Amino acid sequence: MSNYQMPTLQDVLAARPYVYRHLQRTPLHYYPTLSTFMGAQVWIKHENHQPIGAFKVRGGLNLAARLTPSQQQAGLFTASTGNHGQSIAFAARAHGIKATIAVPQGANPGKVAAMRGLGAEVLFHGRDFDAAREWIMGVAEEKQGVFVGPTDDPLIHGVGTYALEILEDLPDVDTIIVPVGAGSGVCGAAIVAKAINPRIEVIAVQSEAAPAMHLSWKTGEMVTAPMETFAEGIATRVPFANTQKIMRHYLDEFVLVSDVAIQQAILLLLHHTHNLAEGAGAAAAAAALDLKGHLAGKKVVLVMSGGNLSLKTLKMLLVQKDDDEQDFAA
Amino acid sequence: MSNYQMPTLQDVLAARPYVYRHLQRTPLHYYPTLSTFMGAQVWIKHENHQPIGAFKVRGGLNLAARLTPSQQQAGLFTASTGNHGQSIAFAARAHGIKATIAVPQGANPGKVAAMRGLGAEVLFHGRDFDAAREWIMGVAEEKQGVFVGPTDDPLIHGVGTYALEILEDLPDVDTIIVPVGAGSGVCGAAIVAKAINPRIEVIAVQSEAAPAMHLSWKTGEMVTAPMETFAEGIATRVPFANTQKIMRHYLDEFVLVSDVAIQQAILLLLHHTHNLAEGAGAAAAAAALDLKGHLAGKKVVLVMSGGNLSLKTLKMLLVQKDDDEQDFAA
Repeated sequence: MSNYQMPTLQDVLAARPYVYRHLQRTPLHYYPTLSTFMGAQVWIKHENHQPIGAFKVRGGLNLAARLTPSQQQAGLFTASTGNHGQSIAFAARAHGIKATIAVPQGANPGKVAAMRGLGAEVLFHGRDFDAAREWIMGVAEEKQGVFVGPTDDPLIHGVGTYALEILEDLPDVDTIIVPVGAGSGVCGAAIVAKAINPRIEVIAVQSEAAPAMHLSWKTGEMVTAPMETFAEGIATRVPFANTQKIMRHYLDEFVLVSDVAIQQAILLLLHHTHNLAEGAGAAAAAAALDLKGHLAGKKVVLVMSGGNLSLKTLKMLLVQKDDDEQDFAA
Repeated sequence: MSNYQMPTLQDVLAARPYVYRHLQRTPLHYYPTLSTFMGAQVWIKHENHQPIGAFKVRGGLNLAARLTPSQQQAGLFTASTGNHGQSIAFAARAHGIKATIAVPQGANPGKVAAMRGLGAEVLFHGRDFDAAREWIMGVAEEKQGVFVGPTDDPLIHGVGTYALEILEDLPDVDTIIVPVGAGSGVCGAAIVAKAINPRIEVIAVQSEAAPAMHLSWKTGEMVTAPMETFAEGIATRVPFANTQKIMRHYLDEFVLVSDVAIQQAILLLLHHTHNLAEGAGAAAAAAALDLKGHLAGKKVVLVMSGGNLSLKTLKMLLVQKDDDEQDFAA
């Protein structure tokens, strides 16, 4: 990675036309009652409003738009158990090319149906994500297709467009809090925010139950760690080198929150915004509650990165919770 | 009402600048797995993505923008137990004028907090909505303020902008299905769609448990009917004359669905789209399932008019339901 050229604001600007050919801007909404509850001025960046329900689709579209004709012909190959796969499937369909996505045996039927609904070929292989990924890399090589990793630069460039929208809608934002899985979302925000105004604070958040990216950032080493969070969008076992490099350069802070705090934040957001966040999408809200003193009175943007929570999990959270919505009143 | 001039496409076009000064377009998303389930090509118009979680905010903004300086000075007065009040509160704040909203004793604390969070003065008066409304009309007259009824023409003009967005995004739509409370939403859609292409079918839907608008449309008389639906956005006891007149002129069909069907549709939509719909916002999906034969293969837009469902109701629906998400697979 020593020659790695970090993405810049220019890369993000260049991605915009390719993103907006197929997507529209997502709203940045201010929530008065949530703000009172949190003791800050709180906006939500609604990436859960994307057609696949997650920010990643921006990256997939930029990547697909940059393929050569022969690459388009050969198609895209990737592995995913979640939103990344839907992003690649959506982008491939939008560009009339083929996507082949490997998932481990026993993958969530709802996610498989969603990827197939978008026209992707979904192949089951191996016991876990890593096995599926290794296998599909081999398939891609054999077929001279394009293997897409979750932090490929064109994905970061495309994803960064959400942060430009934040800066357009709220130029005097103080703090942006972003959940971290592979890191493309927080890197996109950091590249954009720091280029425009270095005083904008960018804070990353991960679950205590999957702290590999956090530990790697804190220590400066590539640290593999247990991955036991329920929130698959931020479930990383092995850190990613390129996003780590960007994060080390730009990031102000990286906090951990508990899975329980994330689950409570899902309900808090549902109550105040009537938007369903998946675990990753609620992690920024959980972090903001932990950072209440630091954020007091500031203009804070919480990135709701995605909304793809299952009904089963939602039901579990609602049943666990006491019946009193007053918990969420200020 | 004999001299009533029905709103036109021109009125809706004229409202656009006032609406887009404060709002952005909402997405019209295609849902592949929901389409397979319904046997049609199904798009959702996501009015639940609005800042107050409902389409009505478009109307409030157009109305507020048209006030004279002396009317602005006197402020807006209305009665509401739901989204209409939030719309007027949002619009008043956006224009720097005062909103006073009457609610009945015992009104939903969450909705009251939302209106107050938007800066409105909320006053409790009377046992029910009608009592609150009568009272606030008197207050408005006394203070020479502007009383806003739920179907005032500027509201219909503003609301119609969502339908223009549908026609821009999906010019060859076959059928648009819209829930009916007071009727501004369906009238906006009908005015726009029929002016642009009279062959576009516009279908209204209400709950069997509050069929006043349906019965009035079917009979051509103004029929008051019991109002027992859980879905407050479509809970109408007394029909509205101006929207009835527009509906009689333009509407193709007006169907009724059961409250149980609406509740199932909330879960169906949550599963396939990960968007929370309130009862009104899910009614179009319930209607589409009833009309499956008629809609087969067509391009159908379901208007998700709002998403302001309480956690308490959502929990009840999820607990009632069997655990098997496979119910919703095609």
